[in-house]
Amino acid sequence: MTLTAREIADLSGGTLAGEAAAPVTGAASAGSAGAGDVVFVEDEKALPAALASAAAVVIAGPFAAGATRDSGALVACEQPKLAFARVVARLHPAPRPSPGAHPSAVVDASAVLGRDVSIGAHAVVDAGVRLGDRVAVGPGAHIGCGVQVGDDTVFKANVTVYPGTSIGARVVVHAGSVLGSDGFGYVRDAATGRYEPFPQVGRLVIEDDVELGAVCTIDRGALGETRIARGTKLDNQVHVAHNVSVGEDVVISAQTGVAGSSVIEKGAIVAGQVGIADHVRIESGAILGAQCGVPSGKVIRGPGVLFWGTPARPIRQYLKELAALARLAKK
Amino acid sequence: MTLTAREIADLSGGTLAGEAAAPVTGAASAGSAGAGDVVFVEDEKALPAALASAAAVVIAGPFAAGATRDSGALVACEQPKLAFARVVARLHPAPRPSPGAHPSAVVDASAVLGRDVSIGAHAVVDAGVRLGDRVAVGPGAHIGCGVQVGDDTVFKANVTVYPGTSIGARVVVHAGSVLGSDGFGYVRDAATGRYEPFPQVGRLVIEDDVELGAVCTIDRGALGETRIARGTKLDNQVHVAHNVSVGEDVVISAQTGVAGSSVIEKGAIVAGQVGIADHVRIESGAILGAQCGVPSGKVIRGPGVLFWGTPARPIRQYLKELAALARLAKK
Amino acid sequence: MTLTAREIADLSGGTLAGEAAAPVTGAASAGSAGAGDVVFVEDEKALPAALASAAAVVIAGPFAAGATRDSGALVACEQPKLAFARVVARLHPAPRPSPGAHPSAVVDASAVLGRDVSIGAHAVVDAGVRLGDRVAVGPGAHIGCGVQVGDDTVFKANVTVYPGTSIGARVVVHAGSVLGSDGFGYVRDAATGRYEPFPQVGRLVIEDDVELGAVCTIDRGALGETRIARGTKLDNQVHVAHNVSVGEDVVISAQTGVAGSSVIEKGAIVAGQVGIADHVRIESGAILGAQCGVPSGKVIRGPGVLFWGTPARPIRQYLKELAALARLAKK
Repeated sequence: MTLTAREIADLSGGTLAGEAAAPVTGAASAGSAGAGDVVFVEDEKALPAALASAAAVVIAGPFAAGATRDSGALVACEQPKLAFARVVARLHPAPRPSPGAHPSAVVDASAVLGRDVSIGAHAVVDAGVRLGDRVAVGPGAHIGCGVQVGDDTVFKANVTVYPGTSIGARVVVHAGSVLGSDGFGYVRDAATGRYEPFPQVGRLVIEDDVELGAVCTIDRGALGETRIARGTKLDNQVHVAHNVSVGEDVVISAQTGVAGSSVIEKGAIVAGQVGIADHVRIESGAILGAQCGVPSGKVIRGPGVLFWGTPARPIRQYLKELAALARLAKK
Repeated sequence: MTLTAREIADLSGGTLAGEAAAPVTGAASAGSAGAGDVVFVEDEKALPAALASAAAVVIAGPFAAGATRDSGALVACEQPKLAFARVVARLHPAPRPSPGAHPSAVVDASAVLGRDVSIGAHAVVDAGVRLGDRVAVGPGAHIGCGVQVGDDTVFKANVTVYPGTSIGARVVVHAGSVLGSDGFGYVRDAATGRYEPFPQVGRLVIEDDVELGAVCTIDRGALGETRIARGTKLDNQVHVAHNVSVGEDVVISAQTGVAGSSVIEKGAIVAGQVGIADHVRIESGAILGAQCGVPSGKVIRGPGVLFWGTPARPIRQYLKELAALARLAKK
Repeated sequence: MTLTAREIADLSGGTLAGEAAAPVTGAASAGSAGAGDVVFVEDEKALPAALASAAAVVIAGPFAAGATRDSGALVACEQPKLAFARVVARLHPAPRPSPGAHPSAVVDASAVLGRDVSIGAHAVVDAGVRLGDRVAVGPGAHIGCGVQVGDDTVFKANVTVYPGTSIGARVVVHAGSVLGSDGFGYVRDAATGRYEPFPQVGRLVIEDDVELGAVCTIDRGALGETRIARGTKLDNQVHVAHNVSVGEDVVISAQTGVAGSSVIEKGAIVAGQVGIADHVRIESGAILGAQCGVPSGKVIRGPGVLFWGTPARPIRQYLKELAALARLAKK
């Protein structure tokens, strides 16, 4: 795939300087660019080096308007990293498996498949499943009874989706993830001390444009539902328990866990290895730093304040405490 | 499936008031009950709202004895949540895959299958495996050579069980879990600085009535065995290392890790993201709060004291320290 | 498999005392040894009990030179645990699946297989894959397009390897691990507040002699590469993000996560549940204690100092702070 500097400027909504026909076939970081590469610059200080690099096209912020290059082209636009991402997505379109079900796939006769659905080798699609147009089910993936899936959604290899799950359009689920498994709920019999399962018969809803990393686990609701709202992105090894509600455009980094019935509101940012206990509310736009812990029932205020530590507190307070403790230990 | 209020009272061992024939087909939380639903109430303050709800049957604690409803029925019993759990399990029996091996499953000729065993599409059952009656092996699951499995045990999709594993009856293993993999043990060659594997040739024993969440990893013993005792429940993404012994009726929440040779005694409660280092002893009935860390070789006293922090200490002490630190930082 | 005491002494590079022909068929810990077992002793204080045990052969450190046993044999050598590991590896050679592709495996016609390759039931090997001699692909594993694999590498069941991954020789990948999945990188569109994927089109390189536990996730580079260097060992459920570089002979314990672009240099030791943020450098030989957290951009000095806490600091300082805090809380 090749794009010209002119096409890149148009994609970016930016202004073009230099060789409009400069052909771009690859992408690189500014430090390692070769001829034919596109690079991007967000920091004005990095602009001179990028301009002098071998890159065919440099995408930079508004600060680059008026700059010139000896060869190649320069595009100045509002959001250079976003423009770069879109350009590279065009250069390297995600390879799509060819439509059709592999002969080894097991697809129940009652499953309803949209147009150009792809079902990989040894995948299993159970009774009553509905797959939208262009859905891709990876090798070894299992889509359980009655699961509903919107258009253009992709399941990578060895994903498991339990019955009772509903998945939107343009969702990506990376390999090994498990969606809709039973939540962790038991009742201890006071007479015997033994645990009996509390019913886990609710649903899991994944809305449009959600992306889930590899080996995530997202449980169905106990009685009600678990929901991951539109546009939210989860990194690898994230755990979401029963009856959790994650709002739109939330990002959750790797190895974070969210316990039962908690709510993460729209636009929150959750770093890695964070622990969110049950019945917590993370307000819209709140930011949780890596490894912090939010105790049961707490509310984290948003937007814009970074919380850290266990129990999670505003980072200014946390850093003050660390400093005071270090001084105390020196005495 | 339908149950009458009378049948629910009998199941619950409770006393019945109101319409003995009231039919129940579903379950709900007290706040969202519709006609035909059963709900439960543990807190006396929530009783009036539940009694006034549309629920066909309200299961409540002994405090409800003598109360009445305008319509529907009321069951007063000792353990309302437990009764509710049992009623819902009756209403929504876990769907069982039909007996027999899917034609695509690969079952070694030397495997011994009990009655009404179900083996899903693309599952693999290796040589010398013994499966008890009504065992269900999910799609894509792999049961390694010589694994022994008791009656009524269920493996969900894409589970992997290594050779050398013995599993009891009525065990549930959720999707993607890995049982009996090699432990993490190496010896560093002082001459080269390189690591060589220490033998991981022991066994893994999972006793009856254990339930394991999605994507758990439980390693076999190095020389001896790893054991998860009867009735213990693990949430998703729990890691248990080689030679660990987990006692009966223990609960371990998501993303907790237990390092080599540690012992968790009967009835302990372990919250999420807890780290238990090697050669630790968690005494019977001890409680570990979320994200706490128990250093190598320590003993955590039980029962009934909640531990928190790293290194884990009684929560009273931990909270005092947090308060003292906050005061100090304000000075 | 049987080894004589003489053969064990030769394998160990040690001196032999006692019955040179004593036959060894198994391995045990010193406390539980039966006749026919080999045991090892690293601690001189444990020597008398081991000598008096039923073990056929005791492997001990140089301190045992000159000691004798009433029956059986004694081998004194420089590295008794290492010698024991090598002896047991000889006694219990890892069972190798028989060569050949199972009839249910799906192997693309363009894949190039070395000699004596084994491909398990329902495994999938995509176009352009190259597998070295004696590679074993477990049941249900998926090796994506163009993946390169060196000799004697083993993939256990249900492993997923994405396209763009290159794997060396003698690598072991335990069940459920996912190699080469997309990194977690998004750009937020300032105009809409929505996240768009940043390109994840780089590579993953796993060098020779690496071992990866069950259910690890290692992402490909965004533009460049992620690399795990020769001889490094990862425990279960470890997460390694895009563009991370892990040096040679590093050990990383279970449930640790490493965020984007961080560098872990040769010989570092990382305990369990550690969080390493992005753009961190862990210097050669540094030691990170369990659950510690290294903030973004930090450098951890090596070798030999143990770091603990979040933010990670030298353990002496951390323990002083803990002690000071405990005193403060008592006032």
